[in-house]
Amino acid sequence: MLNDTSSLSDMNPQQARQMIRQGDWSKPTAGLCAGYTQANLAILPKASAFDFLLFCQRNPKPCPLLDVTDVGSPIPKMIAASADLRTDIPKYRIYRHGELADEVMSLTELWQDDWVGFLLGCSFTFEHPLLAEGIPVRHIEEGRNVPMYISSLPCHDAGSFSGTMVVSMRPMTATQAIRAVQITSRFPSVHGAPVHIGDPTAIGISDINAPDFGESVTLKSGEIPVFWACGVTPQAIAIQSKIPLMVTHAPGHMLICDVKDSAFAVF
Amino acid sequence: MLNDTSSLSDMNPQQARQMIRQGDWSKPTAGLCAGYTQANLAILPKASAFDFLLFCQRNPKPCPLLDVTDVGSPIPKMIAASADLRTDIPKYRIYRHGELADEVMSLTELWQDDWVGFLLGCSFTFEHPLLAEGIPVRHIEEGRNVPMYISSLPCHDAGSFSGTMVVSMRPMTATQAIRAVQITSRFPSVHGAPVHIGDPTAIGISDINAPDFGESVTLKSGEIPVFWACGVTPQAIAIQSKIPLMVTHAPGHMLICDVKDSAFAVF
Repeated sequence: MLNDTSSLSDMNPQQARQMIRQGDWSKPTAGLCAGYTQANLAILPKASAFDFLLFCQRNPKPCPLLDVTDVGSPIPKMIAASADLRTDIPKYRIYRHGELADEVMSLTELWQDDWVGFLLGCSFTFEHPLLAEGIPVRHIEEGRNVPMYISSLPCHDAGSFSGTMVVSMRPMTATQAIRAVQITSRFPSVHGAPVHIGDPTAIGISDINAPDFGESVTLKSGEIPVFWACGVTPQAIAIQSKIPLMVTHAPGHMLICDVKDSAFAVF
Repeated sequence: MLNDTSSLSDMNPQQARQMIRQGDWSKPTAGLCAGYTQANLAILPKASAFDFLLFCQRNPKPCPLLDVTDVGSPIPKMIAASADLRTDIPKYRIYRHGELADEVMSLTELWQDDWVGFLLGCSFTFEHPLLAEGIPVRHIEEGRNVPMYISSLPCHDAGSFSGTMVVSMRPMTATQAIRAVQITSRFPSVHGAPVHIGDPTAIGISDINAPDFGESVTLKSGEIPVFWACGVTPQAIAIQSKIPLMVTHAPGHMLICDVKDSAFAVF
């Protein structure tokens, strides 16, 4: 049953998280629980949490906060009150002093009393409205992970957190790009409007076919690349800032929330 | 010259802050620098700042953050880089353990190295678009301060911060109320859409003619009260939570920012 695509898409969030918690699902979460919001994760000790919360407040496009847990609590009570951040994500990454130190399937042994969990909006939420309006989402068409690039666009510093923005890219025609600006502007809490359209070199991307994360996709003749701020930015910031400890989801392995994508549309 | 209304309204933010800094203006700031954003102020020591930042993140309607200063810095660099929070607000309130302890004209002597300044959006920003669309703003028509009430609507707790929401009220017809929902939804960073329409008792307000802050206004036959989350909420929370120290602006005595109201419209 778990390999049946339609039943995965129809699953409710509680069922999906239970499956992940039991170790029955360790793959990316794209396609699970259609219509429900998926969130990026960053976990920091209390000593760094104020600076990171401030970083998110100053950089809402790459770091749109959906929920922040109480100090020491693994429960994201605003968006998934029955979830547990220690077990309900299929794969985690542990960054120490700016280096990827480990990938683990559970945080049960690692969780500390002073940890704070940050849940950030994800572009999955605006891809469905794009598709519904007939805007192509190339990496979905081509069955790949979205291409992501470390851009030269600076984030606003906050305490020890500084660095540049990670952006995701979707190719489309100019007419489609204009419509995509309108559609994604309706979703400010999941990255909102694009941060750049057109020339990749203008934002420090030298080779559009060599993304820093994810996979490259086809850019057809007559199409322009459209760039959105990306929720992988905190991972790049952890690396660039050499933060002593940050735990994140592994790219594509998200928290499935109890809230629906449609709740984030401002109109 | 300072008493000439048109020159006050035409003044630029730097000139107005200079006038306030020199002690030449100690009154409410309504009407100064037309088109420029005015912000509510809350200052907390670093020890309370994480909890308050989290409180704002969880309660964006009453506490929409426009800027947060670096620890110890009185400079709101995102919205008014040449401003100084110690001197550029006409009147401040000092709350200690939930009680109003003092009102002062300057924080120069009081400012501490661990203070963090929070600047919050203000309903002045959405009143101009309401007026421009022909929606009456009764307290402006009647030359009064907006009526504000401590409602029974709970805020989401964060650490030591808890309490109920302060709301502002504007009377209008049902048709105008529908249009006002549309207009103010465009301004999520300055309180956004109303939190309640109609029966005041449904949100714990027993007498619409006895506001807790500001002044009462006329509710005409055929009009309904429309309630918005209000930036005075942090002051009520400081009182209800008995926070050891919080500094705020005195109601109506705001920070005049370098950014324009129009920058906060999402469409």
